[in-house]
Amino acid sequence: MIELPPLDRVPTQADLLVTHEAIHPFVHRTPILTNRSLDELTGARLSFKCENFQRIGAFKMRGGASAALRFTAEQRERGLATHSSGNHAQAVASAAQQLGVPAYIVMPHDAPRVKVAAVRGYGAEITYCNNTPAERQAALEGVVARTGAAFIHPFDDYGVIAGQATAAMELLEDTDDTLDYILTPVGGGGLLAGTALAARYFSLGAQVYGAEPEGVDDAARSLRSGRIEVNETNHTVSDGLRTHLGERTFPIIHRHVPEIFVVSDDETVAAMRLIWERMKIIVEPSCSVPLAAVLRYPDHFRGKQVGIILTGGNVDVDRLPF
Amino acid sequence: MIELPPLDRVPTQADLLVTHEAIHPFVHRTPILTNRSLDELTGARLSFKCENFQRIGAFKMRGGASAALRFTAEQRERGLATHSSGNHAQAVASAAQQLGVPAYIVMPHDAPRVKVAAVRGYGAEITYCNNTPAERQAALEGVVARTGAAFIHPFDDYGVIAGQATAAMELLEDTDDTLDYILTPVGGGGLLAGTALAARYFSLGAQVYGAEPEGVDDAARSLRSGRIEVNETNHTVSDGLRTHLGERTFPIIHRHVPEIFVVSDDETVAAMRLIWERMKIIVEPSCSVPLAAVLRYPDHFRGKQVGIILTGGNVDVDRLPF
Repeated sequence: MIELPPLDRVPTQADLLVTHEAIHPFVHRTPILTNRSLDELTGARLSFKCENFQRIGAFKMRGGASAALRFTAEQRERGLATHSSGNHAQAVASAAQQLGVPAYIVMPHDAPRVKVAAVRGYGAEITYCNNTPAERQAALEGVVARTGAAFIHPFDDYGVIAGQATAAMELLEDTDDTLDYILTPVGGGGLLAGTALAARYFSLGAQVYGAEPEGVDDAARSLRSGRIEVNETNHTVSDGLRTHLGERTFPIIHRHVPEIFVVSDDETVAAMRLIWERMKIIVEPSCSVPLAAVLRYPDHFRGKQVGIILTGGNVDVDRLPF
Repeated sequence: MIELPPLDRVPTQADLLVTHEAIHPFVHRTPILTNRSLDELTGARLSFKCENFQRIGAFKMRGGASAALRFTAEQRERGLATHSSGNHAQAVASAAQQLGVPAYIVMPHDAPRVKVAAVRGYGAEITYCNNTPAERQAALEGVVARTGAAFIHPFDDYGVIAGQATAAMELLEDTDDTLDYILTPVGGGGLLAGTALAARYFSLGAQVYGAEPEGVDDAARSLRSGRIEVNETNHTVSDGLRTHLGERTFPIIHRHVPEIFVVSDDETVAAMRLIWERMKIIVEPSCSVPLAAVLRYPDHFRGKQVGIILTGGNVDVDRLPF
């Protein structure tokens, strides 16, 4: 097992390379899919990096493994902890299971049963709390005080950002650096920041953009105002994208990402349906926001080689949005 | 373009090799997926040949192209014809479109709109009829008399069988002939017969089995009785498997397939759901019957290397069986 040094600055090219090597035993190298009919529909050449096929069903496995490997063996043995009702919870639980250490996950009482079952399936201990930021934080602090476990933030952590960067590194390599653009969804910004760094270090020409639901368009507003903006509601079908940017993700995005495209939930659900029907793969609503952006802003993408990171496929098939 | 000779006997090894080469421009080489959690659940090592990612969303594209290339150029120019409300209709329509010739498809009035739209999307002319075998046959004969088009049977045709065999050829090659078993669903038997021939010619050890819904278990009964049995109902969620075996498919299956595993529709739907949730890919009910068989008869498959041909992913996401 390759251990990684702690990372308290923006990851360098060398940091990304060693991260990619270190997390290799914990993640799949996911395939790139193309689709003729979606190319015809958009007028672009789309390359989809299928992180919905990643372990735990989402790219979050990369950041979780990258962060876990940066603790000392003594720290790790006391366990890994986080608060999350989504894919990051599964990533931390799976990383802990693969490392043979305990996982402590704080989840809201109203978290989807399927996600609770998945986290428990990785052997994690779950602590329930009310679904407010203050109570999640308090519950997490109680768990950490009791267990001494190491906390892994869902996105605002340079180790996590370095892990998420590895998806774009593989995408760039597998497309021979022919992409004009790379698009990712943006919630807290871990994936978008990592992707921007990967393109900066490993591509001669790829430009990175974010895509975001209009109900939680904090990242688009943050790029315009130059500071971290927050959302007044969390009204979106893209439940993975409700968070605002963090102190570590925002500066990277502000520096390297020229634009965040904003789409409606209807556009997201239509894009999700297109991916299901044309590509025969299962993706989450959050995952479908970049394709929705390509469809909404066709003039920007027509004739271009566009890489899209399909972020995850953990969807409750009993509660589909269409 | 490689043209193929007519095929009026059981395909030989050489027939399969030249068929695979000839249909290459018309089909995708689909990937093989594996899945750790399904391996743990079944105790087997499963390799899934993903024909749900095939052009038109199903393996039928292989047989359609293989049959179409066996007509003379003069025959083809008058068009290709078939009757089908399912994936074979799309295969013939797509083959005709790719060959630049007309397609004439007879479909029942009550065919799913999404399938009608797909066939029309490939530029085919659709003739509607009532959904009885006699009326479908009469409508087809009318179309052929009017147009001179060449009829492609959905399964009971050696050219079609040779085309369907190419999926297993690729599966065997991509798994380095390490499989103990290959499983396919069985309706009319085109895929199962072709798979049995491919294993016979291109594998040292792989044994081929069929899997079938209990509501339409004609193939299992046919293997026992030694003659073609028919179904008294068509009650199954696996709408692609309602047909009985044909005069060309049955003898091949009778000779080379030792057993057809029978599963309930509940087992099929549970297997479909597992594939969706664990593999994050979209498959039809018919496509899920082999995994249902592996789950129902665990003693037969435990510890074995099992290839499963995932036949198709054309499902109406507004009408899911779960």
